[in-house]
Amino acid sequence: MAHSEYKIGVVGTGRMGSNIARHLHDEGFSIVAVFDVIEAAARMLAEEIGAEAADRPARVTELADYIITVVTDDNAMRKIFSESDADSLLKSAEGKLFLNCATISPQIHVDVEKLAEKRGAQSLEGCMASSITQARDGTLYLMCGGKRDAFDKAKPILDSMSVALRYVGDAGRAAQVKALVNMVMNINTAALAEGLGLGAALGLDLSMLQEVFAQTGANSRVLETDGEDMENRDHECYFSAAHAAKDSGIALELAKAAGLNLPLAEATKRQFDKMIEIGKGELDKSGVAELTFPGRG
Amino acid sequence: MAHSEYKIGVVGTGRMGSNIARHLHDEGFSIVAVFDVIEAAARMLAEEIGAEAADRPARVTELADYIITVVTDDNAMRKIFSESDADSLLKSAEGKLFLNCATISPQIHVDVEKLAEKRGAQSLEGCMASSITQARDGTLYLMCGGKRDAFDKAKPILDSMSVALRYVGDAGRAAQVKALVNMVMNINTAALAEGLGLGAALGLDLSMLQEVFAQTGANSRVLETDGEDMENRDHECYFSAAHAAKDSGIALELAKAAGLNLPLAEATKRQFDKMIEIGKGELDKSGVAELTFPGRG
Repeated sequence: MAHSEYKIGVVGTGRMGSNIARHLHDEGFSIVAVFDVIEAAARMLAEEIGAEAADRPARVTELADYIITVVTDDNAMRKIFSESDADSLLKSAEGKLFLNCATISPQIHVDVEKLAEKRGAQSLEGCMASSITQARDGTLYLMCGGKRDAFDKAKPILDSMSVALRYVGDAGRAAQVKALVNMVMNINTAALAEGLGLGAALGLDLSMLQEVFAQTGANSRVLETDGEDMENRDHECYFSAAHAAKDSGIALELAKAAGLNLPLAEATKRQFDKMIEIGKGELDKSGVAELTFPGRG
Repeated sequence: MAHSEYKIGVVGTGRMGSNIARHLHDEGFSIVAVFDVIEAAARMLAEEIGAEAADRPARVTELADYIITVVTDDNAMRKIFSESDADSLLKSAEGKLFLNCATISPQIHVDVEKLAEKRGAQSLEGCMASSITQARDGTLYLMCGGKRDAFDKAKPILDSMSVALRYVGDAGRAAQVKALVNMVMNINTAALAEGLGLGAALGLDLSMLQEVFAQTGANSRVLETDGEDMENRDHECYFSAAHAAKDSGIALELAKAAGLNLPLAEATKRQFDKMIEIGKGELDKSGVAELTFPGRG
Protein backbone atom coordinates (compact mmCIF):
# COMPACT_ATOMS: atom_id res chain seq x y z
CA MET A 1 0.00 0.00 0.00
CA ALA A 2 1.45 3.37 -1.02
CA HIS A 3 2.00 6.00 1.67
CA SER A 4 -0.57 8.27 0.04
CA GLU A 5 -3.27 5.66 0.56
CA TYR A 6 -2.89 5.91 4.34
CA LYS A 7 -5.48 8.47 5.48
CA ILE A 8 -4.14 9.79 8.75
CA GLY A 9 -5.60 12.15 11.34
CA VAL A 10 -3.69 13.79 14.19
CA VAL A 11 -5.36 14.76 17.46
CA GLY A 12 -3.31 17.04 19.68
CA THR A 13 -1.12 19.35 17.60
CA GLY A 14 1.37 20.48 20.22
CA ARG A 15 5.13 20.23 19.82
CA MET A 16 5.16 16.49 19.25
CA GLY A 17 1.90 15.97 17.38
CA SER A 18 2.48 18.78 14.88
CA ASN A 19 5.97 17.56 14.05
CA ILE A 20 4.84 13.97 13.61
CA ALA A 21 2.19 15.31 11.22
CA ARG A 22 4.76 17.37 9.30
CA HIS A 23 7.09 14.42 8.99
CA LEU A 24 4.43 11.98 7.78
CA HIS A 25 3.21 14.64 5.35
CA ASP A 26 6.78 14.99 4.00
CA GLU A 27 6.95 11.23 3.63
CA GLY A 28 3.90 11.20 1.39
CA PHE A 29 1.28 10.02 3.85
CA SER A 30 -2.11 11.71 3.52
CA ILE A 31 -2.78 13.79 6.60
CA VAL A 32 -6.46 14.38 6.11
CA ALA A 33 -7.49 16.01 9.37
CA VAL A 34 -6.02 17.54 12.51
CA PHE A 35 -7.68 18.56 15.77
CA ASP A 36 -6.59 20.45 18.86
CA VAL A 37 -8.48 22.00 21.76
CA ILE A 38 -6.55 25.15 20.86
CA GLU A 39 -8.30 25.81 17.57
CA ALA A 40 -5.66 28.18 16.21
CA ALA A 41 -2.93 25.57 16.65
CA ALA A 42 -4.85 23.03 14.60
CA ARG A 43 -5.78 25.63 11.96
CA MET A 44 -2.21 26.80 11.40
CA LEU A 45 -0.92 23.24 11.05
CA ALA A 46 -3.85 22.29 8.79
CA GLU A 47 -3.03 25.16 6.43
CA GLU A 48 0.65 24.26 6.42
CA ILE A 49 0.13 20.65 5.39
CA GLY A 50 -3.16 20.88 3.52
CA ALA A 51 -5.34 19.03 6.02
CA GLU A 52 -8.78 19.83 7.38
CA ALA A 53 -8.85 21.54 10.76
CA ALA A 54 -11.53 19.38 12.33
CA ASP A 55 -13.99 21.09 14.65
CA ARG A 56 -14.36 18.03 16.88
CA PRO A 57 -12.54 14.72 17.44
CA ALA A 58 -15.35 12.71 15.80
CA ARG A 59 -14.68 14.49 12.51
CA VAL A 60 -11.10 13.15 12.54
CA THR A 61 -12.36 9.57 12.90
CA GLU A 62 -14.82 10.26 10.10
CA LEU A 63 -12.08 11.38 7.67
CA ALA A 64 -9.11 9.22 8.67
CA ASP A 65 -8.42 5.49 8.93
CA TYR A 66 -5.43 5.93 11.24
CA ILE A 67 -5.78 8.40 14.08
CA ILE A 68 -2.63 9.45 15.91
CA THR A 69 -3.33 10.99 19.32
CA VAL A 70 -0.76 13.06 21.21
CA VAL A 71 -2.68 14.84 23.94
CA THR A 72 -1.52 16.42 27.18
CA ASP A 73 -2.49 14.02 29.93
CA ASP A 74 -4.77 11.31 31.25
CA ASN A 75 -7.80 13.61 31.43
CA ALA A 76 -7.40 14.85 27.87
CA MET A 77 -7.05 11.25 26.74
CA ARG A 78 -10.19 10.17 28.60
CA LYS A 79 -12.07 13.09 27.07
CA ILE A 80 -11.24 12.34 23.43
CA PHE A 81 -12.17 8.70 24.02
CA SER A 82 -15.29 9.46 26.05
CA GLU A 83 -18.16 7.00 25.62
CA SER A 84 -20.74 9.59 26.60
CA ASP A 85 -19.52 12.37 24.31
CA ALA A 86 -21.05 12.06 20.82
CA ASP A 87 -18.18 14.14 19.43
CA SER A 88 -15.46 11.84 20.74
CA LEU A 89 -13.10 9.78 18.63
CA LEU A 90 -15.18 6.67 19.29
CA LYS A 91 -18.00 7.81 16.99
CA SER A 92 -18.05 5.76 13.77
CA ALA A 93 -14.78 4.19 14.78
CA GLU A 94 -15.39 0.78 13.21
CA GLY A 95 -12.37 -0.43 11.26
CA LYS A 96 -10.22 2.49 12.36
CA LEU A 97 -6.88 2.25 14.15
CA PHE A 98 -5.88 4.57 16.98
CA LEU A 99 -2.20 5.11 17.60
CA ASN A 100 -1.85 6.73 21.01
CA CYS A 101 1.45 8.51 21.50
CA ALA A 102 0.93 10.71 24.55
CA THR A 103 2.78 9.93 27.75
CA ILE A 104 -0.08 8.87 29.98
CA SER A 105 -0.80 6.36 32.71
CA PRO A 106 -0.48 2.76 31.54
CA GLN A 107 -4.03 1.89 32.64
CA ILE A 108 -5.50 4.45 30.21
CA HIS A 109 -4.01 2.50 27.31
CA VAL A 110 -5.67 -0.65 28.60
CA ASP A 111 -9.01 1.15 28.96
CA VAL A 112 -8.80 2.83 25.54
CA GLU A 113 -8.01 -0.48 23.87
CA LYS A 114 -11.17 -1.96 25.40
CA LEU A 115 -13.31 0.98 24.33
CA ALA A 116 -11.92 0.91 20.80
CA GLU A 117 -12.43 -2.82 20.41
CA LYS A 118 -16.02 -2.48 21.62
CA ARG A 119 -16.59 -0.21 18.62
CA GLY A 120 -14.79 -2.55 16.21
CA ALA A 121 -11.67 -0.40 16.14
CA GLN A 122 -8.05 -1.17 17.00
CA SER A 123 -5.82 0.64 19.45
CA LEU A 124 -2.07 0.70 19.84
CA GLU A 125 0.13 2.61 22.24
CA GLY A 126 3.17 4.23 20.72
CA CYS A 127 5.39 5.62 23.43
CA MET A 128 8.09 7.98 22.31
CA ALA A 129 11.33 8.17 24.25
CA SER A 130 12.65 11.09 22.22
CA SER A 131 11.91 14.70 21.60
CA ILE A 132 10.77 17.27 19.04
CA THR A 133 13.68 17.03 16.61
CA GLN A 134 13.23 13.27 16.39
CA ALA A 135 9.50 13.64 15.80
CA ARG A 136 10.18 16.08 12.96
CA ASP A 137 12.87 13.89 11.40
CA GLY A 138 11.09 10.56 11.82
CA THR A 139 13.86 9.31 14.06
CA LEU A 140 11.86 8.57 17.18
CA TYR A 141 12.64 5.85 19.65
CA LEU A 142 9.21 4.24 19.59
CA MET A 143 7.92 1.54 21.92
CA CYS A 144 4.58 -0.05 21.14
CA GLY A 145 2.11 -1.92 23.28
CA GLY A 146 -1.13 -3.57 22.24
CA LYS A 147 -2.33 -6.41 20.03
CA ARG A 148 0.23 -7.72 17.61
CA ASP A 149 -2.10 -7.37 14.61
CA ALA A 150 -2.67 -3.68 15.37
CA PHE A 151 1.10 -3.26 15.47
CA ASP A 152 1.51 -5.06 12.14
CA LYS A 153 -1.24 -3.01 10.50
CA ALA A 154 0.28 0.30 11.64
CA LYS A 155 3.85 -0.74 10.90
CA PRO A 156 4.45 1.34 7.76
CA ILE A 157 3.48 4.47 9.69
CA LEU A 158 5.48 3.43 12.76
CA ASP A 159 8.53 2.68 10.61
CA SER A 160 8.34 6.10 9.02
CA MET A 161 8.11 7.82 12.42
CA SER A 162 10.96 5.97 14.06
CA VAL A 163 14.57 4.97 13.81
CA ALA A 164 14.18 2.39 16.56
CA LEU A 165 10.90 0.53 16.82
CA ARG A 166 10.18 -1.94 19.57
CA TYR A 167 7.07 -4.03 20.33
CA VAL A 168 7.12 -4.46 24.11
CA GLY A 169 3.89 -6.33 24.86
CA ASP A 170 0.27 -5.72 25.79
CA ALA A 171 -1.39 -2.34 26.00
CA GLY A 172 0.07 -0.33 28.86
CA ARG A 173 3.48 -2.02 28.86
CA ALA A 174 5.11 0.62 26.69
CA ALA A 175 3.75 3.37 28.92
CA GLN A 176 5.20 1.60 31.94
CA VAL A 177 8.63 1.43 30.31
CA LYS A 178 8.34 5.06 29.21
CA ALA A 179 7.38 6.14 32.73
CA LEU A 180 10.47 4.38 34.06
CA VAL A 181 12.73 5.91 31.41
CA ASN A 182 11.49 9.38 32.22
CA MET A 183 11.56 8.82 35.95
CA VAL A 184 15.25 7.86 35.80
CA MET A 185 16.03 10.60 33.27
CA ASN A 186 14.37 13.21 35.48
CA ILE A 187 16.31 12.09 38.55
CA ASN A 188 19.58 12.15 36.59
CA THR A 189 18.72 15.63 35.33
CA ALA A 190 18.02 16.96 38.81
CA ALA A 191 21.23 15.26 39.98
CA LEU A 192 23.29 16.94 37.30
CA ALA A 193 21.76 20.30 38.24
CA GLU A 194 22.92 19.71 41.82
CA GLY A 195 26.44 18.70 40.77
CA LEU A 196 26.95 21.65 38.44
CA GLY A 197 25.24 24.06 40.83
CA LEU A 198 27.58 23.08 43.64
CA GLY A 199 30.53 23.24 41.24
CA ALA A 200 29.53 26.80 40.38
CA ALA A 201 29.21 27.67 44.06
CA LEU A 202 32.75 26.38 44.66
CA GLY A 203 34.09 28.45 41.78
CA LEU A 204 35.12 25.42 39.74
CA ASP A 205 35.53 25.67 35.97
CA LEU A 206 32.27 24.10 34.78
CA SER A 207 33.69 23.02 31.41
CA MET A 208 36.43 21.13 33.22
CA LEU A 209 33.88 19.69 35.63
CA GLN A 210 31.66 18.45 32.79
CA GLU A 211 34.68 16.90 31.08
CA VAL A 212 35.52 15.04 34.27
CA PHE A 213 31.88 13.97 34.74
CA ALA A 214 31.88 12.65 31.15
CA GLN A 215 34.92 10.48 31.81
CA THR A 216 33.83 9.06 35.15
CA GLY A 217 31.00 7.43 37.04
CA ALA A 218 29.04 10.69 36.87
CA ASN A 219 28.51 10.35 33.12
CA SER A 220 24.98 10.22 31.77
CA ARG A 221 22.93 10.92 28.69
CA VAL A 222 21.51 14.06 30.32
CA LEU A 223 25.06 15.35 30.85
CA GLU A 224 25.36 15.34 27.04
CA THR A 225 21.96 16.85 26.40
CA ASP A 226 21.51 19.26 29.32
CA GLY A 227 24.91 20.04 30.87
CA GLU A 228 25.85 23.06 28.78
CA ASP A 229 22.29 24.34 28.81
CA MET A 230 22.35 24.34 32.60
CA GLU A 231 25.64 26.23 32.61
CA ASN A 232 24.40 28.77 30.04
CA ARG A 233 20.81 29.03 31.36
CA ASP A 234 19.62 28.06 27.90
CA HIS A 235 16.27 26.49 28.77
CA GLU A 236 14.50 26.56 25.42
CA CYS A 237 11.89 23.89 25.82
CA TYR A 238 12.36 20.41 24.38
CA PHE A 239 10.84 18.56 27.30
CA SER A 240 9.27 20.84 29.84
CA ALA A 241 9.72 20.82 33.59
CA ALA A 242 5.93 20.44 33.87
CA HIS A 243 6.07 17.31 31.72
CA ALA A 244 8.91 15.99 33.85
CA ALA A 245 6.75 16.49 36.94
CA LYS A 246 3.85 14.71 35.25
CA ASP A 247 5.91 11.72 34.12
CA SER A 248 7.63 11.29 37.47
CA GLY A 249 4.14 11.43 38.96
CA ILE A 250 2.97 8.57 36.73
CA ALA A 251 5.93 6.46 37.84
CA LEU A 252 5.28 7.28 41.49
CA GLU A 253 1.65 6.20 41.15
CA LEU A 254 2.86 2.86 39.78
CA ALA A 255 5.31 2.60 42.69
CA LYS A 256 2.60 3.39 45.20
CA ALA A 257 0.33 0.72 43.73
CA ALA A 258 3.23 -1.73 43.97
CA GLY A 259 3.98 -0.73 47.58
CA LEU A 260 7.45 0.61 46.74
CA ASN A 261 9.09 3.61 48.38
CA LEU A 262 11.22 5.61 45.89
CA PRO A 263 12.68 8.59 47.74
CA LEU A 264 14.76 9.94 44.83
CA ALA A 265 11.85 9.90 42.42
CA GLU A 266 9.84 11.72 45.08
CA ALA A 267 12.52 14.36 45.71
CA THR A 268 12.78 14.86 41.94
CA LYS A 269 9.03 15.30 41.52
CA ARG A 270 9.11 17.90 44.30
CA GLN A 271 11.82 19.81 42.41
CA PHE A 272 9.84 19.86 39.15
CA ASP A 273 6.62 20.67 41.03
CA LYS A 274 8.47 23.58 42.58
CA MET A 275 9.38 24.85 39.12
CA ILE A 276 5.70 24.88 38.22
CA GLU A 277 4.92 26.69 41.50
CA ILE A 278 7.43 29.45 40.79
CA GLY A 279 6.19 29.87 37.24
CA LYS A 280 9.04 28.05 35.51
CA GLY A 281 7.15 24.91 34.52
CA GLU A 282 7.40 25.71 30.82
CA LEU A 283 11.18 25.93 30.85
CA ASP A 284 13.00 22.89 29.55
CA LYS A 285 13.74 20.23 32.17
CA SER A 286 17.33 21.56 32.20
CA GLY A 287 15.80 24.60 33.92
CA VAL A 288 15.81 22.62 37.15
CA ALA A 289 19.34 24.06 37.45
CA GLU A 290 17.64 27.37 38.26
CA LEU A 291 16.86 25.80 41.64
CA THR A 292 20.40 24.67 42.43
CA PHE A 293 22.83 27.26 41.04
CA PRO A 294 23.86 29.99 43.49
CA GLY A 295 22.22 33.33 42.79
CA ARG A 296 19.57 31.98 40.44
CA GLY A 297 15.86 31.54 40.95
CA MET B 1 65.58 8.57 37.12
CA ALA B 2 64.86 4.84 36.88
CA HIS B 3 61.71 3.50 38.51
CA SER B 4 63.76 1.47 40.96
CA GLU B 5 65.33 4.63 42.36
CA TYR B 6 61.93 5.86 43.57
CA LYS B 7 61.64 4.73 47.17
CA ILE B 8 57.92 4.58 47.82
CA GLY B 9 55.89 3.94 50.96
CA VAL B 10 52.17 3.20 51.12
CA VAL B 11 50.05 4.08 54.13
CA GLY B 12 46.62 2.50 54.16
CA THR B 13 46.69 -0.90 52.51
CA GLY B 14 43.01 -1.44 51.90
CA ARG B 15 41.54 -2.29 48.50
CA MET B 16 42.92 0.75 46.74
CA GLY B 17 46.23 1.24 48.55
CA SER B 18 47.30 -2.38 48.27
CA ASN B 19 46.56 -2.50 44.55
CA ILE B 20 48.38 0.74 43.87
CA ALA B 21 51.35 -0.77 45.71
CA ARG B 22 51.13 -4.00 43.70
CA HIS B 23 50.98 -2.10 40.44
CA LEU B 24 53.92 0.18 41.22
CA HIS B 25 55.89 -2.85 42.39
CA ASP B 26 55.15 -4.57 39.07
CA GLU B 27 56.31 -1.46 37.26
CA GLY B 28 59.69 -1.63 38.94
CA PHE B 29 59.26 1.06 41.58
CA SER B 30 60.78 0.26 44.97
CA ILE B 31 58.02 -0.14 47.50
CA VAL B 32 60.13 0.04 50.64
CA ALA B 33 57.48 0.20 53.36
CA VAL B 34 53.78 -0.22 53.93
CA PHE B 35 51.66 0.62 56.94
CA ASP B 36 48.08 -0.03 57.98
CA VAL B 37 46.23 0.23 61.28
CA ILE B 38 45.21 -3.36 60.61
CA GLU B 39 48.68 -4.89 61.07
CA ALA B 40 47.88 -8.15 59.34
CA ALA B 41 46.82 -6.33 56.18
CA ALA B 42 50.12 -4.48 55.96
CA ARG B 43 52.11 -7.62 56.80
CA MET B 44 50.50 -9.73 54.08
CA LEU B 45 51.07 -7.07 51.46
CA ALA B 46 54.63 -6.46 52.66
CA GLU B 47 55.44 -10.14 52.24
CA GLU B 48 53.86 -10.27 48.81
CA ILE B 49 55.88 -7.38 47.40
CA GLY B 50 59.02 -7.55 49.52
CA ALA B 51 58.50 -4.36 51.54
CA GLU B 52 58.87 -3.69 55.24
CA ALA B 53 55.67 -3.77 57.26
CA ALA B 54 56.23 -0.57 59.22
CA ASP B 55 55.10 -0.55 62.85
CA ARG B 56 54.19 3.15 62.74
CA PRO B 57 53.65 5.86 60.10
CA ALA B 58 56.91 7.63 60.99
CA ARG B 59 58.85 4.55 59.93
CA VAL B 60 57.39 4.86 56.41
CA THR B 61 58.61 8.47 56.12
CA GLU B 62 61.99 7.29 57.39
CA LEU B 63 62.37 4.67 54.67
CA ALA B 64 60.59 6.26 51.71
CA ASP B 65 60.97 9.48 49.70
CA TYR B 66 57.46 9.31 48.27
CA ILE B 67 54.65 8.40 50.63
CA ILE B 68 51.30 7.45 49.12
CA THR B 69 48.45 7.68 51.61
CA VAL B 70 45.08 6.00 51.02
CA VAL B 71 43.33 6.02 54.37
CA THR B 72 39.67 5.67 55.27
CA ASP B 73 38.46 9.14 56.13
CA ASP B 74 39.18 12.63 57.44
CA ASN B 75 39.95 11.41 60.96
CA ALA B 76 42.40 8.77 59.79
CA MET B 77 44.08 11.39 57.61
CA ARG B 78 44.38 13.84 60.50
CA LYS B 79 45.83 11.11 62.67
CA ILE B 80 48.63 10.08 60.29
CA PHE B 81 49.54 13.75 59.82
CA SER B 82 49.19 14.67 63.50
CA GLU B 83 51.61 17.33 64.74
CA SER B 84 51.43 16.08 68.30
CA ASP B 85 52.04 12.41 67.55
CA ALA B 86 55.76 11.63 67.39
CA ASP B 87 54.97 8.54 65.31
CA SER B 88 53.09 10.45 62.60
CA LEU B 89 54.20 10.82 59.00
CA LEU B 90 55.47 14.31 59.72
CA LYS B 91 58.47 13.03 61.66
CA SER B 92 61.70 13.56 59.66
CA ALA B 93 59.60 14.56 56.67
CA GLU B 94 62.05 17.04 55.20
CA GLY B 95 62.49 16.59 51.47
CA LYS B 96 59.79 13.95 51.29
CA LEU B 97 56.69 14.09 49.10
CA PHE B 98 53.26 12.97 50.27
CA LEU B 99 50.78 11.86 47.66
CA ASN B 100 47.38 11.74 49.30
CA CYS B 101 44.89 9.59 47.45
CA ALA B 102 42.07 9.05 49.94
CA THR B 103 38.69 10.59 49.28
CA ILE B 104 38.51 13.12 52.08
CA SER B 105 37.23 16.63 52.68
CA PRO B 106 38.96 19.24 50.51
CA GLN B 107 40.02 21.31 53.53
CA ILE B 108 42.12 18.43 54.88
CA HIS B 109 44.29 18.59 51.76
CA VAL B 110 44.84 22.29 52.35
CA ASP B 111 45.74 21.66 55.99
CA VAL B 112 48.04 18.72 55.22
CA GLU B 113 49.88 20.75 52.60
CA LYS B 114 50.56 23.45 55.20
CA LEU B 115 51.75 20.93 57.77
CA ALA B 116 54.01 19.22 55.24
CA GLU B 117 55.54 22.45 54.03
CA LYS B 118 56.23 23.51 57.61
CA ARG B 119 58.44 20.43 57.85
CA GLY B 120 60.12 21.06 54.50
CA ALA B 121 58.08 18.38 52.75
CA GLN B 122 55.76 18.55 49.77
CA SER B 123 52.16 17.43 49.55
CA LEU B 124 49.96 16.63 46.61
CA GLU B 125 46.41 15.41 46.44
CA GLY B 126 45.75 12.63 43.98
CA CYS B 127 42.05 11.98 43.73
CA MET B 128 41.03 8.79 42.01
CA ALA B 129 37.79 8.62 40.11
CA SER B 130 38.08 4.92 39.42
CA SER B 131 38.07 1.66 41.27
CA ILE B 132 40.11 -1.36 42.32
CA THR B 133 40.75 -2.86 38.89
CA GLN B 134 42.10 0.45 37.65
CA ALA B 135 44.35 0.80 40.69
CA ARG B 136 45.74 -2.68 40.05
CA ASP B 137 46.27 -2.06 36.34
CA GLY B 138 47.62 1.48 36.63
CA THR B 139 44.70 2.83 34.64
CA LEU B 140 43.29 5.23 37.19
CA TYR B 141 41.54 8.46 36.34
CA LEU B 142 43.69 10.68 38.54
CA MET B 143 43.07 14.33 39.40
CA CYS B 144 45.77 16.21 41.25
CA GLY B 145 45.69 19.34 43.36
CA GLY B 146 48.59 21.15 44.99
CA LYS B 147 51.72 23.01 44.00
CA ARG B 148 52.80 22.56 40.42
CA ASP B 149 56.36 21.58 41.38
CA ALA B 150 55.09 18.81 43.63
CA PHE B 151 53.01 17.55 40.70
CA ASP B 152 56.03 17.66 38.38
CA LYS B 153 58.23 15.85 40.88
CA ALA B 154 55.71 13.05 41.39
CA LYS B 155 54.78 12.78 37.73
CA PRO B 156 56.61 9.53 36.88
CA ILE B 157 54.69 7.81 39.69
CA LEU B 158 51.41 9.49 38.75
CA ASP B 159 51.87 8.52 35.10
CA SER B 160 52.43 4.92 36.06
CA MET B 161 49.30 4.87 38.22
CA SER B 162 46.97 6.47 35.70
CA VAL B 163 45.66 6.36 32.19
CA ALA B 164 44.21 9.86 32.49
CA LEU B 165 46.09 12.39 34.58
CA ARG B 166 44.78 15.88 35.22
CA TYR B 167 46.22 18.77 37.25
CA VAL B 168 43.17 20.68 38.45
CA GLY B 169 44.61 23.43 40.66
CA ASP B 170 45.47 24.16 44.27
CA ALA B 171 45.27 21.69 47.12
CA GLY B 172 41.67 20.74 47.79
CA ARG B 173 40.40 21.38 44.26
CA ALA B 174 40.72 17.78 43.15
CA ALA B 175 38.86 16.62 46.25
CA GLN B 176 36.08 19.05 45.44
CA VAL B 177 35.78 17.69 41.90
CA LYS B 178 35.92 14.13 43.20
CA ALA B 179 33.21 14.86 45.76
CA LEU B 180 31.01 16.20 42.97
CA VAL B 181 31.71 13.22 40.71
CA ASN B 182 30.79 10.80 43.47
CA MET B 183 27.79 12.80 44.58
CA VAL B 184 26.32 12.67 41.06
CA MET B 185 27.37 9.04 40.58
CA ASN B 186 25.70 8.05 43.85
CA ILE B 187 22.47 9.80 42.92
CA ASN B 188 22.46 8.15 39.50
CA THR B 189 23.08 4.79 41.17
CA ALA B 190 20.20 5.22 43.60
CA ALA B 191 18.05 6.41 40.67
CA LEU B 192 18.84 3.32 38.64
CA ALA B 193 17.98 1.14 41.63
CA GLU B 194 14.59 2.81 41.77
CA GLY B 195 13.97 2.40 38.04
CA LEU B 196 14.93 -1.26 37.94
CA GLY B 197 13.19 -1.96 41.25
CA LEU B 198 9.93 -0.55 39.96
CA GLY B 199 10.42 -2.39 36.67
CA ALA B 200 10.76 -5.63 38.63
CA ALA B 201 7.64 -4.82 40.63
CA LEU B 202 5.70 -4.32 37.39
CA GLY B 203 6.93 -7.64 36.05
CA LEU B 204 8.84 -6.08 33.18
CA ASP B 205 11.71 -7.92 31.53
CA LEU B 206 14.72 -6.22 33.14
CA SER B 207 17.07 -7.00 30.25
CA MET B 208 14.67 -5.28 27.88
CA LEU B 209 14.29 -2.39 30.32
CA GLN B 210 18.05 -1.91 30.60
CA GLU B 211 18.37 -1.99 26.81
CA VAL B 212 15.76 0.74 26.55
CA PHE B 213 17.44 2.78 29.31
CA ALA B 214 20.74 2.48 27.43
CA GLN B 215 19.22 3.90 24.26
CA THR B 216 17.32 6.77 25.84
CA GLY B 217 17.57 9.69 28.26
CA ALA B 218 17.88 7.24 31.14
CA ASN B 219 21.33 6.12 30.04
CA SER B 220 24.25 6.56 32.42
CA ARG B 221 27.65 5.19 33.26
CA VAL B 222 26.23 3.45 36.32
CA LEU B 223 23.71 1.66 34.09
CA GLU B 224 26.71 0.04 32.40
CA THR B 225 28.59 -0.72 35.60
CA ASP B 226 25.78 -1.54 38.06
CA GLY B 227 22.62 -2.43 36.13
CA GLU B 228 23.14 -6.16 35.77
CA ASP B 229 24.58 -6.41 39.28
CA MET B 230 21.39 -4.87 40.65
CA GLU B 231 19.28 -7.35 38.69
CA ASN B 232 21.40 -10.32 39.79
CA ARG B 233 22.03 -9.14 43.38
CA ASP B 234 25.74 -9.41 42.67
CA HIS B 235 27.06 -6.85 45.15
CA GLU B 236 30.70 -7.84 45.40
CA CYS B 237 32.33 -4.68 46.63
CA TYR B 238 34.16 -2.31 44.28
CA PHE B 239 32.94 0.88 45.91
CA SER B 240 31.04 0.28 49.10
CA ALA B 241 27.71 1.73 50.10
CA ALA B 242 29.45 3.10 53.20
CA HIS B 243 31.95 4.95 51.01
CA ALA B 244 29.10 6.29 48.92
CA ALA B 245 27.48 7.63 52.08
CA LYS B 246 30.75 9.23 53.14
CA ASP B 247 31.41 10.89 49.77
CA SER B 248 27.87 12.20 49.43
CA GLY B 249 28.34 13.54 52.95
CA ILE B 250 31.47 15.45 51.92
CA ALA B 251 29.61 17.04 49.02
CA LEU B 252 26.69 17.94 51.26
CA GLU B 253 29.04 19.64 53.72
CA LEU B 254 30.40 21.73 50.85
CA ALA B 255 26.84 22.55 49.79
CA LYS B 256 25.89 23.53 53.32
CA ALA B 257 28.88 25.84 53.57
CA ALA B 258 27.86 27.38 50.25
CA GLY B 259 24.25 27.80 51.38
CA LEU B 260 22.89 25.41 48.73
CA ASN B 261 19.98 23.05 49.19
CA LEU B 262 20.49 19.77 47.31
CA PRO B 263 17.48 17.54 47.99
CA LEU B 264 18.53 14.66 45.72
CA ALA B 265 21.99 14.41 47.23
CA GLU B 266 20.33 14.38 50.64
CA ALA B 267 17.83 11.68 49.70
CA THR B 268 20.70 9.63 48.28
CA LYS B 269 22.80 9.99 51.41
CA ARG B 270 19.82 8.81 53.46
CA GLN B 271 19.59 5.69 51.27
CA PHE B 272 23.26 4.80 51.72
CA ASP B 273 23.09 5.66 55.43
CA LYS B 274 20.16 3.27 55.64
CA MET B 275 22.27 0.54 54.11
CA ILE B 276 24.84 1.02 56.86
CA GLU B 277 22.07 0.96 59.49
CA ILE B 278 20.72 -2.36 58.24
CA GLY B 279 24.20 -3.87 58.12
CA LYS B 280 24.66 -3.68 54.34
CA GLY B 281 27.20 -0.86 54.25
CA GLU B 282 29.94 -3.15 52.99
CA LEU B 283 28.00 -4.24 49.94
CA ASP B 284 28.93 -2.54 46.71
CA LYS B 285 27.04 0.67 46.00
CA SER B 286 24.90 -1.36 43.56
CA GLY B 287 23.48 -2.96 46.71
CA VAL B 288 21.27 0.10 47.11
CA ALA B 289 18.92 -1.91 44.88
CA GLU B 290 18.28 -4.08 47.95
CA LEU B 291 16.24 -1.12 49.22
CA THR B 292 14.11 -0.69 46.10
CA PHE B 293 13.41 -4.12 44.62
CA PRO B 294 10.21 -5.78 45.82
CA GLY B 295 10.78 -8.62 48.26
CA ARG B 296 14.38 -7.75 49.03
CA GLY B 297 15.92 -6.22 52.13
